Amino acid sequence: MLSRLARSCALPRNGKRLTHKRLATSRNLAAFSSFANSNEGNQNKLSAILAASAILAGTSICASEAKHPDPTPTNVTQEEGFEDNVRDLDKLPTYTSEQVSENNGENGKIWMSYGGIVYDVTNFVYNHPGGSERIMLAAGGAVEPYWHLYRQHFATDLPMRLMEDMVVGKLAEKDQDAIDEQMAKIEEENEDPYAHEPKRSELLIVHGDQPMNAEVPAELLTSSYITPADVFYIRHHHPVPLMMKKDIDSYELEIDLSEFSSELGLKESTVKISIADLKKLPKTEVVATLQCSGNRRGDMNSAGRTSGTSWSQGAISTAKWGGVRLTDVLKAAGIEDPISLTEKDSIQKHLRMESLDGMKASINMEKATNPYGDVIIAYEMNGEPLPRDHGFPLRVIVPGFAAVRNMKWLKKIEISKNEAEGAWQQGLNYKTLPPSVTDAKKVDLAKMPSMTEVAVFSGITSVDIVGIPKLKPGKTVLVKAKGWAWSGGGRNIVRVDVSGNAGESWTAANLGEGSDQKFNRAWAWTFWECEVPAIVKKDGTVEVVSKAVDLAFNSQPESVAHGWNVRGLGNNSWYRVITRG
Amino acid sequence: MLSRLARSCALPRNGKRLTHKRLATSRNLAAFSSFANSNEGNQNKLSAILAASAILAGTSICASEAKHPDPTPTNVTQEEGFEDNVRDLDKLPTYTSEQVSENNGENGKIWMSYGGIVYDVTNFVYNHPGGSERIMLAAGGAVEPYWHLYRQHFATDLPMRLMEDMVVGKLAEKDQDAIDEQMAKIEEENEDPYAHEPKRSELLIVHGDQPMNAEVPAELLTSSYITPADVFYIRHHHPVPLMMKKDIDSYELEIDLSEFSSELGLKESTVKISIADLKKLPKTEVVATLQCSGNRRGDMNSAGRTSGTSWSQGAISTAKWGGVRLTDVLKAAGIEDPISLTEKDSIQKHLRMESLDGMKASINMEKATNPYGDVIIAYEMNGEPLPRDHGFPLRVIVPGFAAVRNMKWLKKIEISKNEAEGAWQQGLNYKTLPPSVTDAKKVDLAKMPSMTEVAVFSGITSVDIVGIPKLKPGKTVLVKAKGWAWSGGGRNIVRVDVSGNAGESWTAANLGEGSDQKFNRAWAWTFWECEVPAIVKKDGTVEVVSKAVDLAFNSQPESVAHGWNVRGLGNNSWYRVITRG
Repeated sequence: MLSRLARSCALPRNGKRLTHKRLATSRNLAAFSSFANSNEGNQNKLSAILAASAILAGTSICASEAKHPDPTPTNVTQEEGFEDNVRDLDKLPTYTSEQVSENNGENGKIWMSYGGIVYDVTNFVYNHPGGSERIMLAAGGAVEPYWHLYRQHFATDLPMRLMEDMVVGKLAEKDQDAIDEQMAKIEEENEDPYAHEPKRSELLIVHGDQPMNAEVPAELLTSSYITPADVFYIRHHHPVPLMMKKDIDSYELEIDLSEFSSELGLKESTVKISIADLKKLPKTEVVATLQCSGNRRGDMNSAGRTSGTSWSQGAISTAKWGGVRLTDVLKAAGIEDPISLTEKDSIQKHLRMESLDGMKASINMEKATNPYGDVIIAYEMNGEPLPRDHGFPLRVIVPGFAAVRNMKWLKKIEISKNEAEGAWQQGLNYKTLPPSVTDAKKVDLAKMPSMTEVAVFSGITSVDIVGIPKLKPGKTVLVKAKGWAWSGGGRNIVRVDVSGNAGESWTAANLGEGSDQKFNRAWAWTFWECEVPAIVKKDGTVEVVSKAVDLAFNSQPESVAHGWNVRGLGNNSWYRVITRG
Repeated sequence: MLSRLARSCALPRNGKRLTHKRLATSRNLAAFSSFANSNEGNQNKLSAILAASAILAGTSICASEAKHPDPTPTNVTQEEGFEDNVRDLDKLPTYTSEQVSENNGENGKIWMSYGGIVYDVTNFVYNHPGGSERIMLAAGGAVEPYWHLYRQHFATDLPMRLMEDMVVGKLAEKDQDAIDEQMAKIEEENEDPYAHEPKRSELLIVHGDQPMNAEVPAELLTSSYITPADVFYIRHHHPVPLMMKKDIDSYELEIDLSEFSSELGLKESTVKISIADLKKLPKTEVVATLQCSGNRRGDMNSAGRTSGTSWSQGAISTAKWGGVRLTDVLKAAGIEDPISLTEKDSIQKHLRMESLDGMKASINMEKATNPYGDVIIAYEMNGEPLPRDHGFPLRVIVPGFAAVRNMKWLKKIEISKNEAEGAWQQGLNYKTLPPSVTDAKKVDLAKMPSMTEVAVFSGITSVDIVGIPKLKPGKTVLVKAKGWAWSGGGRNIVRVDVSGNAGESWTAANLGEGSDQKFNRAWAWTFWECEVPAIVKKDGTVEVVSKAVDLAFNSQPESVAHGWNVRGLGNNSWYRVITRG
């Protein structure tokens, strides 16, 4: 049995940290197809993924071998590992694949197998960070082919830890052998979907590289106001779409107006615009900060374990985006007055977006068409064509909104009375639950709004103690601190308060670059610097704290605990740095 | 000397609380005129006030004698009174009015006299809550006639307390006699500017009645979603303008476009629109909450004394406002495309507003012209003509902005490259200073933005302990709480967290009325109810705490201390209620 378990995860031995073996990397998304064919009833479920994978099937035109530092190991330690927790594995019943497939949700139970173990995930599906829709793809079947694509499951030990409590039995050896054979075949016959990732800067801190999730180190974050494209943070959900020259030449943005084409009197319900035609529209540039909704999630784990990448403060960057106003694109597609359409019948409407990698998201049409909202379809980043990692050939920039709404690799937009479908818009993935909720099953996710505008944030990127070689407890020293601050919705940063005595007193920082942005259209961050007295604590350290205040006089909450949420989203509690100088 | 002092303020005797004698009430703004004539150099300074006072000179058409509860006495106690602090008054030098007038600011010193005492206010003018511009009206002269109008100086003991430290001498008896004579003459000859205040509900909690500042009691606040007009909170800066029938018939809103008339190709730089013509434009209705920027200032005083009315949570109310879109008015005035004008040359522009009582304020043109901003010029409140207390005949409604920008008694609007002048826009009055700043002289007020959008707030209006007759310390009881929550900028309330154990755990409240407002156009508050376990503290009380979260996931800060500011603005810290059931 242990050898079986070891196929999917390296088990801890003698109290060592639990780590996960990566599945072999030379596999391709197309592998799903053959697997699905052998796995009755799963074909429809897979169609969405397969559609997204089509673009990945070509060969590389610009990919080179990726070379990155190893993913940052998880810092979570544990007393016991999977082996200890599931001691009585041999005593558990054995099930066949057929028996597993009977529990595909239709009878109220959802089972899945992985690495020779059978799991009952019925109560977990609502809490699947990637959304219940997505985990249900594997209902009644084997998890292996899905994790082959969604390798974020190997980035931390969280998935295996959660699964410990869901074990219901073993999978019949012959059935696991069949799965293993199939996976081996997939590996042999197909290319690794991650084989054509772009080359990345070694300066980035990589949390997981399949898909790539990497943040900017603190010392680089405020080294230039516009983040150079190669050190702009990366947060992907899938392999980076790969386009051949012919794909680019024939690339067309699809604008689906079918829900409104008759009332708008449009001849065509769908309009396609080539990149060349798009570039004929007036060009505009917007300097905007993007931030992952999970930025600073790492700090939130101190108040309770959350799921997802353990970002420090570096999942944020700023670029000058060049492109065309979304409103101009809508007008070019035949919508004479996008604002009137938005207001029509007082019904909420959404701009739905789809990307080449299968991502779906939407924004409200008021933001999409607001004359002061500065939403653009970008084809440039910092004066160059968009890099593959940041959305080549087209991405949407929704200034002041969470980065997930700034759709990369844009393939299609659509005006609809409904939000985008899928985990990234309607699922748990980007929903901030109340601090009291640890089981998403207990809330109505439909009533919880998805991330749109972002709250006020700040971070400290350096702390220097002025001219004191040794810190004596109880003494006050002068500290030079600098950092960044940003708020969503275009709300300018009006103040950053800095404290060296845990908030007993505050010093207002000097605001630098970014402090002169347009009123209420401050889409990019503001840099700050501050000299502040700090008290040396008993342990010889000083702690420096920052909190920013935006134009609406919202400020950052003191404690991370009161905003804790199970997905670890939106941690904008006071930023704290402890240093010995 | 003491008798002299007693003319202006009742001095504390034997440790009694310091209170202030009101100046006689039968006086009129026009009194300034004769006083100014005798007070060389002050004429120009007074012209602004005099212009505002003209409308007050008529006789009443609808005023009735006001009858209110006495102003809430200040809760501030003090060890020593004015008498004790200025023991050596007799030893101080005596100055003449002429000597006082030499220190009018031109030589770098600013003196004023009041009640026979001479004060050096040089270092205070920057910190005058009503703005330095306004206090400078009395530079080198007597304060009496100004306080005759601005009677908020008598609402608390703060003005006299601050002035204790500024005493430099006595005013020559003959000069004070002359001032007293003049004030007596003013009283005799002129009508009290507050003689024609509207009748108000006795349900309101009055903090000061000249000008009227009154809040809604907690138990009424959430008794109806739309606040009845007669218990809508009142926050005035002056007497309520009084209009005769002929004034109303000839009333015209002035639209000053002189800064842009040539580039817009307009024939007239100023357009006037009668109320009848205004009402011919399409009517629209907006349900919007208004909140005084100082709401909950009372709580902020626990973290340090602030200046201004000590509001509890009741300086907030909600009405359905009926009127015409501001954009339609601008178009009617000849501006073909208000959005293009706003964007022209990328220069920030402002909509400046002036009222019949001399108030001036402005909002950014992006808000004024935003198709989704819902700014209107209202002539109705809850389906009836605007009451005098709420802006009759016209007021601006700027949904999501601080109430001070929702100009009552609207007389004039103007598009300008500059913010409105005056204390309410550019002065200290509505500026949130950093918590570190107690002396406004030390900051550049021009760099501090005025209140615009409002942060996220909540309040608790009732707490009922469920079925427990006696509270035993350490026990947990079930508590039913209800209240309101609101955020500026149209950001919907997505959650209200309630705690009965000081935030150790939270229960998400049920959101009621207001929770179904348009996405990001939630201009009105949201009501909530919650059953929450609460722990009985050692003293037999329970404390219930609320904090709301808005669409941008901004939340209320835990402590009032870290957002403390000298003007006591924007206190949105956790709302706390302590009860014995």
